[in-house]
Amino acid sequence: METLQIATPAGSALVDITGAVQGSVDKLRVNEGLCAVFVPHTTAGLTLNENWDPDVQHDILLTLNDLVRPDPRHRHSEGNSPAHIKAALMGNSLTLIVSGGRLQLGTWQGVYLAEFDGPRRRQVWVKVVIG
Amino acid sequence: METLQIATPAGSALVDITGAVQGSVDKLRVNEGLCAVFVPHTTAGLTLNENWDPDVQHDILLTLNDLVRPDPRHRHSEGNSPAHIKAALMGNSLTLIVSGGRLQLGTWQGVYLAEFDGPRRRQVWVKVVIG
Amino acid sequence: METLQIATPAGSALVDITGAVQGSVDKLRVNEGLCAVFVPHTTAGLTLNENWDPDVQHDILLTLNDLVRPDPRHRHSEGNSPAHIKAALMGNSLTLIVSGGRLQLGTWQGVYLAEFDGPRRRQVWVKVVIG
Repeated sequence: METLQIATPAGSALVDITGAVQGSVDKLRVNEGLCAVFVPHTTAGLTLNENWDPDVQHDILLTLNDLVRPDPRHRHSEGNSPAHIKAALMGNSLTLIVSGGRLQLGTWQGVYLAEFDGPRRRQVWVKVVIG
Repeated sequence: METLQIATPAGSALVDITGAVQGSVDKLRVNEGLCAVFVPHTTAGLTLNENWDPDVQHDILLTLNDLVRPDPRHRHSEGNSPAHIKAALMGNSLTLIVSGGRLQLGTWQGVYLAEFDGPRRRQVWVKVVIG
Repeated sequence: METLQIATPAGSALVDITGAVQGSVDKLRVNEGLCAVFVPHTTAGLTLNENWDPDVQHDILLTLNDLVRPDPRHRHSEGNSPAHIKAALMGNSLTLIVSGGRLQLGTWQGVYLAEFDGPRRRQVWVKVVIG
């Protein structure tokens, strides 16, 4: 298992980790298989989305922040329940296909760490199985 | 890795790809293992849901389209940010269990390509690892 | 493949199944690999979230139930379309990393069965591949 260390820049942010995940695949020297990407946090998640126009990332965060608002009925005393909920909506685990030593992604796809309670130092775990 | 070619019929649609994914498992001749299903697009995703009553699919799309509306604050110039956001909410990767050469699914479960910016020709990638 | 039997306590509930999933990994005697967790139902899903303060689970369910309301335009005659939609938002498949015979999770992370149409008896399937 490889561990990536990612510094997130803001309260809400989508951080492109595609190159870092590919770096782990390179280190693990797997040609064909599956790559599990996992975020061991409860207020950050993972998503795949467009890596060309950064406005897409802006719009995703804008709408998620509209959908999940602070709510006086929330009980969690740390006050960051919206971050927990947005992380649950994005999910914390991805399974990617590796072929010819490369992560197989669509032309416009990047792998993003979805931060909802930053800025922070976060970990991303990467494990590749041969197959 | 197998590539499925799927034509989607409308702007928003859930297309049952269970049979096509099983076809890939058959071709790859794996009896026991994991099957990764992956959509290499940023305005379409994957979901598992009821394959019996098509009204469920109607209701899922209706409510997703209500939740994520066009918004004048969206900046992405292609104007399809809602499709990107709905794809992120559904996710682009699934891991299914294969046993006895068959995808293991619940009685009422089907695998669906979730189209949010169609109609289009889409790809779905399938990879099976033995285990 | 291992099958867990989980009784859910209420209409909406997050049930901690971390220990039960680890029990399956123990039985399957895998030291290093990937663990697929799968829910074969269409009105229940899976999520990873905080296992320390139960108020987080309360807040997640509260906000999901606000986001996805019963809607007179829903057509599904069983009347439980909101449960189908919430299950789709959470997802039904997770891929976890196993190392040293242990599920690798963050300090505050637990694996939860997300019930949206209970109380019921539910199944969770667990499969581990070595790698």
